[in-house]
This record gives sequence, C-alpha cells and structure tokens, in this order.
Amino acid sequence: MRDPECIFCRIVSGEIPARVLTQNELAVALLDAFPLAVGHSLVITRSHRPKVQDLTSKETVALFEMTRQIASAVEAAMQVPSTTIAIHNGREAGQEIQHVHVHVIPRTRADGAGPVHSMFKVRPKLSTKEFDSVYDKIADSLGRG
Amino acid sequence: MRDPECIFCRIVSGEIPARVLTQNELAVALLDAFPLAVGHSLVITRSHRPKVQDLTSKETVALFEMTRQIASAVEAAMQVPSTTIAIHNGREAGQEIQHVHVHVIPRTRADGAGPVHSMFKVRPKLSTKEFDSVYDKIADSLGRG
Repeated sequence: MRDPECIFCRIVSGEIPARVLTQNELAVALLDAFPLAVGHSLVITRSHRPKVQDLTSKETVALFEMTRQIASAVEAAMQVPSTTIAIHNGREAGQEIQHVHVHVIPRTRADGAGPVHSMFKVRPKLSTKEFDSVYDKIADSLGRG
Repeated sequence: MRDPECIFCRIVSGEIPARVLTQNELAVALLDAFPLAVGHSLVITRSHRPKVQDLTSKETVALFEMTRQIASAVEAAMQVPSTTIAIHNGREAGQEIQHVHVHVIPRTRADGAGPVHSMFKVRPKLSTKEFDSVYDKIADSLGRG
C-alpha cells in the first residue's frame, strides 16, 4: 500500500533521499531531517499505514523490533542514557504525516524537555465511580475488538 | 524476573490492586492511576525489564500487539480521534518506574497538549557534514549490535 503524496512512501520508494539507517521487507529506520535532539531517528513501516491500529501483526512486530534496535544503537552512538520513544497516533496527537512513524529521541538530564506529562497542563480528577465507568467502557471495547 | 520493590511487578503479582484491562502470559494492560486524560492506559511487560532494550523478542511482540489493541479500544471507548503512544525509555526521559511501560493517552483537538515536539525548546541545527557524522555513528552502532 502506497500513497504517492506521502513523504514517507516517497522515502521508502527512494524518490526522496533520506539517511536510511537500516531496513527490511516491512520497516525502515532513518534519521529525522528535523531533529529534536542530535540522533533523533524515525522507524516507519514500508507500507502506508495511517495509524497503529492499521498495522498488520507482522508489521507491528517488524516496526517495534526495529525500534528496539534503534533505541539501543542511538543511545550507544550518541552516548546518551535515555530515549523518548513516541508515536503521534492521529492528527489530534500532532501527527503531521499520516503514515505510522515511531520517534526515537535521545535524552539527557540537561535537555530540559521533561516527561511526556509536561505536555498536559490540565489533568482529570476522577472519582472511583468515574474510574470504574472508564474501565468498563474500555474493557467492553476490547471485548468487541 | 521480578523486583519486589517495583510497583508494576507488585501489580502484576496482584499484590497491589489495579484496573487490569487485559493480560496474557507476557503483557498486562491497565488504567493509569494518575491519568493525563480520561482513559489513559498503560501496557507493561509481566517481567521486570527496565528498558525497551532489555525486552526479549517475544516480549516486544506481546507488548506492542497489546498496545495496538489498547490504542484501538481506548479511542473507541473514549470516543477520541487520536492517542499519544509514548515510552519514557530511561530516567533522563522521565521514567519514574524502571519497568517498561507504554503510555496510551487519549487526545483531542481541544486538549492543548500538542505534539511531543512541544517539549523541546532548544533544537539542534546540523550541517550536512554533522548529519553525516551522526548517521555514521548510529549505523556503526547498529552494525555492532
């Protein structure tokens, strides 16, 4: 599956150059051209899949096995102790290219970026009853899935 | 592998109660007790693995297959269009519990949290030569891995 307008599909096909770190039949890892930190890498599927839910089981395995490898290599190569691994899963999460991509971002104590929690200025306070209701809804949805 | 001091190990063993959404031999999904948004869920390994690099291949598959299920169920149940999927992979990335956990956080256009990019106030500007050098270092590290 390929979208001729998608920048990641065009990178996968070789139409747009990129610094490809490793690739296999299902996934490709490359340097992010607009890094948040030196060594910021991306792991993408070869096929055009908008969201994580759209991945096949084989693609899920390939994508995250490669993500594990890349996290390890990025930390070793950049000599950083940690990485933030993140997916903007949908436009409202900040996804700008509608083709699944995993960000692997080097982190140090000095970078001042904090945890993902720092993004959320307003947090819900739930009663036990509200927690139970949320639980029931998600468990029901899992049962139907 | 189990760490008796680890809160997630104690949840897995049933010693600490949690709202467990689904589980199998290798992974467990539960509601985050301190949600960033209503429906914020976690997917954890059953074994105590500090970082993504420490996962076995089977655990990687189980963790991210379950993450895919949970993302789909959370979006459906909470009626949100998107989720942020994130791992604090190491203390410097904001990891407070040293046991791999994937955050699945419901997102809406109105929540004001933005992309992960909003966390990084200072971004590197790399020359082509610097990009090439970063590329070589990570590719070398992958080759050795």
